[in-house]
Amino acid sequence: MADKQLNSNDSIIYVGNKQPMKYVLGVVTQFQNGSEEVFVKARGRLISKAVDVVEILRNKLMKEVNVNNIETSTQKITGDKGDVNVSVISIRLLK
Amino acid sequence: MADKQLNSNDSIIYVGNKQPMKYVLGVVTQFQNGSEEVFVKARGRLISKAVDVVEILRNKLMKEVNVNNIETSTQKITGDKGDVNVSVISIRLLK
Repeated sequence: MADKQLNSNDSIIYVGNKQPMKYVLGVVTQFQNGSEEVFVKARGRLISKAVDVVEILRNKLMKEVNVNNIETSTQKITGDKGDVNVSVISIRLLK
Repeated sequence: MADKQLNSNDSIIYVGNKQPMKYVLGVVTQFQNGSEEVFVKARGRLISKAVDVVEILRNKLMKEVNVNNIETSTQKITGDKGDVNVSVISIRLLK
């Protein structure tokens, strides 16, 4: 992903094809390492899993987490068959 | 169309297994019928499609639509194998 909004104080967890719990623990680790905010991001069909990750996090492991903001956008991806539009979600979590 | 729809201030479009464009047109119709706000809601794997619906809407058919707020939650569903937690998304759109 060409998302270069990295800042020293924020962390981004990109949700991929592994089990949701892997990404849940990734978020917990980022907060434990001192991040003030963590973004959970996903594209396409993985958007559903990103929401699962946040729901598992705040229901089970980090009940104090604050889901500060959820934004969606569209990315154009160039593939073999031309450009394809893919939806993106970005979920901002605060401790 | 039923006249009573003209009086409703909010409408809900539940995203299911049909093509995204069906739900996009459903939202447009609700606004055309006088709704001030429309909620797009989905559960589980359909969450990704709900985001697609909103992105198609605001990129193609209703560029003036305002994605006011996105919330997620968890629903407990009782099935044959006991309770299952399912993530839910609710996207609030304003004209």
